Amino acid sequence: MSKNMQVLLASRPKAGVSESNFQIVERDIPTPGPGEVLVRNHWLSLDPYMRGRMNASKSYAAGVEIGDVMTGGTVGEVVESNHPRHKVGDFVVGNTGWQLYAAAAGETLNRVDPDLVPLSAYLGVVGMPGATAWTGLFEHCQPVAGETLVVSAASGAVGGVVGQLGKMQGCRVVGIAGGRMKCDYVVKELGFDACIDYKAGRLYEDLKNACPSGVDCYFENVGGPTMDTVLRVLNPFSRIALCGMISDYNLEEPYGVKLIRSLLVNRVRLQGFIVNDRMDLYQRALSRLGVLVSQGRIKYRESIAEGLQNAPTAFIGLLAGRNFGKQLVKLV
Amino acid sequence: MSKNMQVLLASRPKAGVSESNFQIVERDIPTPGPGEVLVRNHWLSLDPYMRGRMNASKSYAAGVEIGDVMTGGTVGEVVESNHPRHKVGDFVVGNTGWQLYAAAAGETLNRVDPDLVPLSAYLGVVGMPGATAWTGLFEHCQPVAGETLVVSAASGAVGGVVGQLGKMQGCRVVGIAGGRMKCDYVVKELGFDACIDYKAGRLYEDLKNACPSGVDCYFENVGGPTMDTVLRVLNPFSRIALCGMISDYNLEEPYGVKLIRSLLVNRVRLQGFIVNDRMDLYQRALSRLGVLVSQGRIKYRESIAEGLQNAPTAFIGLLAGRNFGKQLVKLV
Repeated sequence: MSKNMQVLLASRPKAGVSESNFQIVERDIPTPGPGEVLVRNHWLSLDPYMRGRMNASKSYAAGVEIGDVMTGGTVGEVVESNHPRHKVGDFVVGNTGWQLYAAAAGETLNRVDPDLVPLSAYLGVVGMPGATAWTGLFEHCQPVAGETLVVSAASGAVGGVVGQLGKMQGCRVVGIAGGRMKCDYVVKELGFDACIDYKAGRLYEDLKNACPSGVDCYFENVGGPTMDTVLRVLNPFSRIALCGMISDYNLEEPYGVKLIRSLLVNRVRLQGFIVNDRMDLYQRALSRLGVLVSQGRIKYRESIAEGLQNAPTAFIGLLAGRNFGKQLVKLV
Repeated sequence: MSKNMQVLLASRPKAGVSESNFQIVERDIPTPGPGEVLVRNHWLSLDPYMRGRMNASKSYAAGVEIGDVMTGGTVGEVVESNHPRHKVGDFVVGNTGWQLYAAAAGETLNRVDPDLVPLSAYLGVVGMPGATAWTGLFEHCQPVAGETLVVSAASGAVGGVVGQLGKMQGCRVVGIAGGRMKCDYVVKELGFDACIDYKAGRLYEDLKNACPSGVDCYFENVGGPTMDTVLRVLNPFSRIALCGMISDYNLEEPYGVKLIRSLLVNRVRLQGFIVNDRMDLYQRALSRLGVLVSQGRIKYRESIAEGLQNAPTAFIGLLAGRNFGKQLVKLV
């Protein structure tokens, strides 16, 4: 291939994201400058946080400008290097965006070992989502053996890791996911004690049954009515790691959470967080997760879209929960 | 006086509290048993938490049963003692309820010094509300000099102390209160930097103007739309001490808080708490507050109802914000 392909932000979504918010362009393959590395990307990660970057308003990071390449984590192969730490043939993870080739500063890339775990895992369980799960669980939920941990979006890239780590920690782990198929996977493959299909419409009753001793830790990925329902079953002194609110991202008017009083009555600690706030934990989390995944003690599942041109559709599907496990785009 | 008077819970309120929820009865003055002390109460404290105790559902403490004496903090004089630590003529604080006389276990009473601060202050600034302010501010808000602290119900028993301690800590302190008179008091008497009258209907604009560097700490006493508005002006890594939600207590359906996403985006730590969770801090807070009040460095204001028979009306007024400062009932 002699050309680069990029996906640009063409316009900002009003509420739901549509294909027309993106533009696919062909460009020359860039020439790496001093200290830079040319990477041929193999995999692109699609993650819910990207929805926030499509807005004009500031989220925890500045938004993507109209006409810019969409932001995104990637793993690829070094094809040219002007940086002493990287050599041709190395595999590296970075944040080089929705494109086939990127020239990136060497310091922003981290070498990964394709023999330890498959390359794509460095964008999922052994990447940003895995480190997010680790940080939220151990730093903010702080589960103790015997406690009950509830995880929303339990079959997702983050939720699946949270629950498996929670089981290792000796917790009762209850997932919440959309549909019987995802719930079966969460229990039978990932080893959660139970998983509730929120689409069945009995979330409160099902939660009460699945958590006979109440809920001590809640790892929140979705927000909205799911959060409002889990607030009803919290125990005194429980902890909430607020990682994501995907159910709100596409709404013009966010859902109003009624049971805030549960946070008072139960003296709950709720901590909003993003993984980058604790870069001190990042490498430690990833090296531990790499070992656990290579030993088969942490399992994961991927939804793979083929080809960069299919990234917009896959991203829209991710926001609607149509993915099953970590959403990736295969570029090579 | 040869009889005791008590206020009983006659029925549970559906939403708003009315006089008919209470019953005033005359009883014999009790005889203290072994280890007990007979106290003649001088002051009864009225506090928002009592609204929760009127419900059947468990709040952080068990509710008051129908026909029981309403729960409440009191300060009074020992008139008979079967306990070695208390002698006739001592003044003690305790939780002896809405009544003129009480026989209470000696261990549940703490002696106070009427020469340091006025007796009534041991139910307010140098009592449970003062310790609540101390715990929420220093343990949960953890303000640092130069930060901006917002306090709702700023003229109240808790809020007034929070703001004055925040000023000593070197913060910019902004109160929220209902009405021009309360706001004037908060700024001119208590020394807050600014106070916003939420009844003026421009809370968001006024908050933005009063907090040009955003909000780092929020001490929350009211909840509801006030909370939703403060969530819009929070800074990254801000801290919320969730102490009370008085705006919700009388609603059948609680207000839905829309801007939960601000907790995520700004990586906020929110901690629900009650003062009793940190009894380790209680005496330290009170001895420090006692000194500060006796030195005139912490000011306070009281709303005084005369006579136990007026306690129900005063309590209903407190829930509606008709008090101005600490609400007390004078019994002697």
